[in-house]
Amino acid sequence: MATRGIAANCRKVVCIGRNYADHIKELNNVRPKKPFFFLKPPSSILEPGQGPVLRPKGVNLHYEVELALIMGRKVQDLPQDDERGALDAIAGYAVSIDMTARDVQEEAKRKSIPWTAAKGFDTFLPVSKYIPKSAITDPHDVELWLTVNGTERQRDSTALMLFRIPRILSEISRVMKLEEGDIVLTGTPKGVGKVEVGDVMRAGVVVGGKEIEEAGIEVG
Amino acid sequence: MATRGIAANCRKVVCIGRNYADHIKELNNVRPKKPFFFLKPPSSILEPGQGPVLRPKGVNLHYEVELALIMGRKVQDLPQDDERGALDAIAGYAVSIDMTARDVQEEAKRKSIPWTAAKGFDTFLPVSKYIPKSAITDPHDVELWLTVNGTERQRDSTALMLFRIPRILSEISRVMKLEEGDIVLTGTPKGVGKVEVGDVMRAGVVVGGKEIEEAGIEVG
Ligand SMILES: [Mg+2]
Ligand SMILES: [Mg+2]
Ligand SMILES: [Mg+2]
Repeated sequence: MATRGIAANCRKVVCIGRNYADHIKELNNVRPKKPFFFLKPPSSILEPGQGPVLRPKGVNLHYEVELALIMGRKVQDLPQDDERGALDAIAGYAVSIDMTARDVQEEAKRKSIPWTAAKGFDTFLPVSKYIPKSAITDPHDVELWLTVNGTERQRDSTALMLFRIPRILSEISRVMKLEEGDIVLTGTPKGVGKVEVGDVMRAGVVVGGKEIEEAGIEVG
Repeated sequence: MATRGIAANCRKVVCIGRNYADHIKELNNVRPKKPFFFLKPPSSILEPGQGPVLRPKGVNLHYEVELALIMGRKVQDLPQDDERGALDAIAGYAVSIDMTARDVQEEAKRKSIPWTAAKGFDTFLPVSKYIPKSAITDPHDVELWLTVNGTERQRDSTALMLFRIPRILSEISRVMKLEEGDIVLTGTPKGVGKVEVGDVMRAGVVVGGKEIEEAGIEVG
């Protein structure tokens, strides 16, 4: 899978909303009682070297760094407490940036209509190279980071997730089966903000004090 | 494409909301100033013979019959008035039923969160066989119908669409490119309602007074 490309293998991208407490606060959102999710289209994936991210005219464009799970097998009706089943179903990882047209999203929220456009523009999902599963022994204990023009904007541990991966995969798979190649974004920590034309985003993940080489994103 | 199967070729399903005036009224919704859309996952597609539609426990399950467009080529930034470009990009059609967990959707609307779960359960997108393009010379002049246990519930002409196909494809493709095999649902006319376990839905499309054979859906 690693060589064929993350986008080519992907038929859906399922994204968890509001999964870090401090990020919920910074956007004045309500903390969910259970995980909720939305879809980004596979057509929004931007693989390494394919940048830049397009800035649709007049849009307030935000970055959200997230740990992405690349599924390795079909998952359907996974029990909430099946930690082993959840982790076994993951083939590998990627770092990703859930680009968001924040003003378009806020307008959708006011109208109670879907966020699809706000989240789904072409190029709105930069991903890193495929990270082999062996590089991340515990996905609940890695540090995600993102800089804009060299200034650090996000850096937090995935230990802060409100809903951990088994619960996330359980909630999704009780609605829609996950299939090999599908991608799950696990939510963003605090620090989201705006990028302008010309800004350069870098992102990555630190495991046990070491940068994972495959995880590096650099995108204009 | 017809033989490989509609689901196998599909990487996204883009659905237009509120595209028939009488349907907007029956759900007490606000008429949109421009088309808005949401995604169903390809994993929700149910091809002929694969039924029944699952009834998630305790859910108020609604049918919505819709004309589906099967895209034949990449479409990006299509101008609104490019009627020829829009119709040329369509490879064929299908009749589809946009199954909806109405209570889950209403709760999402109250919370201003995405409709993804309400629309995305496995089996929530029954489709007919592939309808060759030649069978529908004018997609704005066909009659969609749906019955439940033999009683007619929906029957209206696609001439009643508020936003016609070129406008729909333009709005979508200015956000996300459409690719070969992608599916676009064009909205449902009035008459949506509930189905219970054991109910049988039938649906189809009439062109120039004749039923299109490939368009027939029968699903439990
Ligand atoms: Mg999709
Ligand atoms: Mg996000
Ligand atoms: Mg619909």
